[in-house]
Amino acid sequence: MSAPTAIRFADRLSNVETSAIRELFKLLGQPGIISFAGGFPDAALFDVEGIRAASERALQHDPAAALQYGATEGYPPLREQLAALMAGKGVAGLAPEQLIVTTGSQQALDLIGKTLISPGDKVIVEGPTFLATIQCFRLYGAELISAPIDGDGVDVQRLEALIAQHRPKFVYLVPTFGNPSGALLSLERRRRVLELALRTQTLIVEDDPYGDLYFDAAPPPSLLALSAELPGSRDCLVHCGSLSKVLSPGLRIGWLVAPPELLAKAVMCKQFSDAHTSTFAQATAAQYLQGGRLGATLERVRQVYAERAQAMGAALRSELGAALGFVPPQGGLFIWARLTGVGRSGAGTALADGHELAQRAIAQGVAFVPGRPFYASAPDPATLRLSFATVGVERIREGVARLARAL
Amino acid sequence: MSAPTAIRFADRLSNVETSAIRELFKLLGQPGIISFAGGFPDAALFDVEGIRAASERALQHDPAAALQYGATEGYPPLREQLAALMAGKGVAGLAPEQLIVTTGSQQALDLIGKTLISPGDKVIVEGPTFLATIQCFRLYGAELISAPIDGDGVDVQRLEALIAQHRPKFVYLVPTFGNPSGALLSLERRRRVLELALRTQTLIVEDDPYGDLYFDAAPPPSLLALSAELPGSRDCLVHCGSLSKVLSPGLRIGWLVAPPELLAKAVMCKQFSDAHTSTFAQATAAQYLQGGRLGATLERVRQVYAERAQAMGAALRSELGAALGFVPPQGGLFIWARLTGVGRSGAGTALADGHELAQRAIAQGVAFVPGRPFYASAPDPATLRLSFATVGVERIREGVARLARAL
Repeated sequence: MSAPTAIRFADRLSNVETSAIRELFKLLGQPGIISFAGGFPDAALFDVEGIRAASERALQHDPAAALQYGATEGYPPLREQLAALMAGKGVAGLAPEQLIVTTGSQQALDLIGKTLISPGDKVIVEGPTFLATIQCFRLYGAELISAPIDGDGVDVQRLEALIAQHRPKFVYLVPTFGNPSGALLSLERRRRVLELALRTQTLIVEDDPYGDLYFDAAPPPSLLALSAELPGSRDCLVHCGSLSKVLSPGLRIGWLVAPPELLAKAVMCKQFSDAHTSTFAQATAAQYLQGGRLGATLERVRQVYAERAQAMGAALRSELGAALGFVPPQGGLFIWARLTGVGRSGAGTALADGHELAQRAIAQGVAFVPGRPFYASAPDPATLRLSFATVGVERIREGVARLARAL
Repeated sequence: MSAPTAIRFADRLSNVETSAIRELFKLLGQPGIISFAGGFPDAALFDVEGIRAASERALQHDPAAALQYGATEGYPPLREQLAALMAGKGVAGLAPEQLIVTTGSQQALDLIGKTLISPGDKVIVEGPTFLATIQCFRLYGAELISAPIDGDGVDVQRLEALIAQHRPKFVYLVPTFGNPSGALLSLERRRRVLELALRTQTLIVEDDPYGDLYFDAAPPPSLLALSAELPGSRDCLVHCGSLSKVLSPGLRIGWLVAPPELLAKAVMCKQFSDAHTSTFAQATAAQYLQGGRLGATLERVRQVYAERAQAMGAALRSELGAALGFVPPQGGLFIWARLTGVGRSGAGTALADGHELAQRAIAQGVAFVPGRPFYASAPDPATLRLSFATVGVERIREGVARLARAL
């Protein structure tokens, strides 16, 4: 379809392709499909009554604040609640003025791109990393470089070499239960990342939407929390948080913590991006957090996701055996797996292409996302992402059985 | 304050200055100040009960839709309601798929910038125009060219010459009760603008947040509505709408109508800007519009603003006389005025600098915004913007009396 002659698009659009997984998603509407393809929490776990009551209190308490224009930085009572939430996660001494509210953490990523990336700038991301981050940064003209990861998160030695080679504008990491990798950056590596950032004066963006979704033990402290151990390192840190995975994505409440100079520029950019995040949603979230229900909500959510992750892991091992390698996740929404190319018994050969398996799987009535689009460069075509978050345990077993048939 | 060495900002930030009016706004918190400086609707007129009930229905009706991730294009029932709203304003045959929901119309502007503006591209705006548009487009590297306006809106002959000279990426107009000008583009000029757009294949962006706030007769149809008269002209039109001035800014509900190729690119950009607009706010707005209360709300709002505009106009004439020239607005939130440099009786000389008057006015306990920052180029320093929207009639009279003392 060619555009009318009056329309001439901006050059930046040529940096992004339409998503390769979009076609797959179109097939998800087919009846009877069991979907491991989603990247969202289970709506059945939302605390609808708690949110309804919070919204009602917000409108009773101060209707003008909930419905009028608000400060670009965010609704002050929400900034206080979010600072308290961060304190509860080990981030000491964070004043409400040191964070701004964003329209989901996706907007935090957009503001990071807008304030920092000039066309041609280099940015290091994990390989694989969050799909929408790749596209978001590319729209600002970034050249993305992938740092390899394993089950313990990013390979710090390789990261150091890439920083020395490319002098990136910043490094983007999802250290805790990343999407798609599910990987957990170890405490020892977290300390090395901070030390590396400080020594090389490299800005690190820590995206942390999943850190609260642990199954058993809490993960190591965030880079932001750990920065208290290493004086000066907080000046090299940007942190993105979100209520989307723990409370409700529909509120679109995220936040951004950054050094004051960067935060001020992000506020200016936000002013011209959407003026401010919905005060109606912000006042509702503030009332919800103040009401103290998040702890109980999180406990319920963690338990359900832990059961589903456990069920999926067990089913994958029993149904696909040696044909599929994966590190069982300790939290989050995803199992990241790799087709080994050998049969389930460990003998013979089997399909080792995630995209082809995805197509066969649809035919068997089960969907997932092949790993390729999650790489900014050098994709591993044998990888795949399976989300267990929105499917009940019985359906997970049935879905994995279908996957085994597809293989 | 210099940034930590780890932070290197993007080049685009050097295209914008921090707002010249920000200092003035800091003074507004002083006790007793009567403020004509705001650019927002009166929170006392919000239909709080209607919005509360709509929100409750949204959560009862389909809590998952109101709280889960949603389509980037917008919540389908809201797109239907907005298409119906546009049909009620004379835009025939607009399908819900031909508009997308944005996070306030500010985001529509941002998406227009992101999809269309490459650094160095020329864009024609009115002089004066909406402040946040100037900064928004400059962040994408636009070079802005001002087309002069009068009480009947943009000077079409001058606009035609500027288009021929600069071949802009697009022209941005606020044809109806513009901010800050309050001007109303006449029907005859609207037809000429459409004809000009079609003939020169120039994209026109029509920003229309104020069109429903008329005081007496309804304004001429929007460019989008009129485009039905001139086959092919709709392909040259982009239209931004908003619920902010008529229902509530805090919901952050705007929309964008554009040719399909442009709308598709805007959706892609929005996906990486904030994923989607709050579904909680969207579902609430959809229920509100479906409930049919907007008509009554608008009637009340129009009546109050008309009284205030009338009171301010009369007070300005009686207190400042020949010292101040202005065209009484027929709608919107603003009186745009110009210091003539002569005394109130028409004899002698008086102050003709809006910025200086603003500072003197603060000392007298009244605030407004001087006109200078609303110009992308060649500012007229004698201009000023006075908002009557949030001040009662008695206080308007008192405020204008203070303004006269300041002069």
